[in-house]
Amino acid sequence: MEFKIALVQFNPARKNVDSNIEKITALISNIKADLIVLPELANSGYLYQIPNDLRPYSEPADGSGPFLSALKKLSKASGGLIISGYAELAGNQLFNSAVAVSPDGVIENYRKIHLFADEKSLFESGDQGFKVFQWQGVKIGMMICFDWIFPESARTLALLGAHIIAHPANLVLPYCQDAMITRSIENKVFTITANRIGQETLGEQTLQFTGGSQITAPQGKVLYRAPGDETAIHTTIIDPLQASDKTISPRNNLFEDRRPSMYHG
Amino acid sequence: MEFKIALVQFNPARKNVDSNIEKITALISNIKADLIVLPELANSGYLYQIPNDLRPYSEPADGSGPFLSALKKLSKASGGLIISGYAELAGNQLFNSAVAVSPDGVIENYRKIHLFADEKSLFESGDQGFKVFQWQGVKIGMMICFDWIFPESARTLALLGAHIIAHPANLVLPYCQDAMITRSIENKVFTITANRIGQETLGEQTLQFTGGSQITAPQGKVLYRAPGDETAIHTTIIDPLQASDKTISPRNNLFEDRRPSMYHG
Repeated sequence: MEFKIALVQFNPARKNVDSNIEKITALISNIKADLIVLPELANSGYLYQIPNDLRPYSEPADGSGPFLSALKKLSKASGGLIISGYAELAGNQLFNSAVAVSPDGVIENYRKIHLFADEKSLFESGDQGFKVFQWQGVKIGMMICFDWIFPESARTLALLGAHIIAHPANLVLPYCQDAMITRSIENKVFTITANRIGQETLGEQTLQFTGGSQITAPQGKVLYRAPGDETAIHTTIIDPLQASDKTISPRNNLFEDRRPSMYHG
Repeated sequence: MEFKIALVQFNPARKNVDSNIEKITALISNIKADLIVLPELANSGYLYQIPNDLRPYSEPADGSGPFLSALKKLSKASGGLIISGYAELAGNQLFNSAVAVSPDGVIENYRKIHLFADEKSLFESGDQGFKVFQWQGVKIGMMICFDWIFPESARTLALLGAHIIAHPANLVLPYCQDAMITRSIENKVFTITANRIGQETLGEQTLQFTGGSQITAPQGKVLYRAPGDETAIHTTIIDPLQASDKTISPRNNLFEDRRPSMYHG
């Protein structure tokens, strides 16, 4: 099958949801794609001291807030699904989440399971597990940024049947992009890492986000890698169902050859 | 601590254990190291049609055969442990195994858990699990070649406490070396992939082994990568206990941050 995917790398503003909606709208309102993937925390930006500082820029997963409403409109315009990271408000709690928004609204929400560094001061750890859902016959899983370093994240999504792992990110370390090649190979899945660019400063802390957003095919072929410091949009057509075939030699199947009774952890 | 490791890449002959003992002896008899790692199936070579063809070049794990006896002598000469792949004979069964031989003899044996391609016609799958043992205060685990593609292999060894994963290999695909960087990063362990070089032909099948043996530090730094087609020996001094520290940010520990209740598989 032909499935058009789009990866968006940009510089979300901090404390300005409206500006981020405008940036995203300008970037993708003319893109037709079956799936568009945006970076982590694309509504809020990254650096906040305490939850109270971030809460005004967060919103619930039900789609009633401005950011998810805007994504729904953009989804209608593109004709496809939009996956984005965002700061989620659930009661009084905050989660670092990824949402899948269709023209009809939110169809899945994932709460980041492995929080990085001072995210632990802002967010609760994801409490709902990894999830895979269907969209246009394609099985899609979501993970966020630091989840990459735990091989169990992508493995769990692949074992749940994901053809594509959508991976919004705010990466500050240089290791992930190459590791995502391994994630694609070891699970025979497509991975789409949508990283952000730009710099944020809070007090004495300055973070430089590393861009290099990447689309990788199941055999580990890098279909696209974005520059490190520029806004970038890339669309490409893939056949997600290639990821259904876990054969890697005439006598080896990546999943059938697994021997869970021999594994720890 | 200072711990000297040596990686040996060479071209084992097929159906000639004596020749392989001679080659290995010539390569390492003057090497002083705490740990020397040799390729997979270094006693037998790789391509055989049926178990009966391979059995004459295999030997038991108890150290009574010629290959393991030679390794014991070489271990005495080097003062350190030698880890090598070899064809193991157990009763009438064959295993694709890795053995750790000290000056006192065999101290651990690992039977390859994930067999590649036509190895399934020759060997039984490993039936004893992944193992980690101590040598001079260092915890060492073994895995063999194709085990690399299953993240559970290195993960299991790391969770069992391995500082160093010794990884004898007969690689024919180009993916492993880069993936071993991911294995080192995601587990914060040293990995030593000792691959072979050369070509083997059996009937219509020709295999070209890809060399590129590699030593990788816990942060993913490649300390050494051998050429693709030349005999190579490389020694370097590492501090294996660096791998005890699973911290990767002031608030992140790779093992404590794991959330097994969220993982499948």
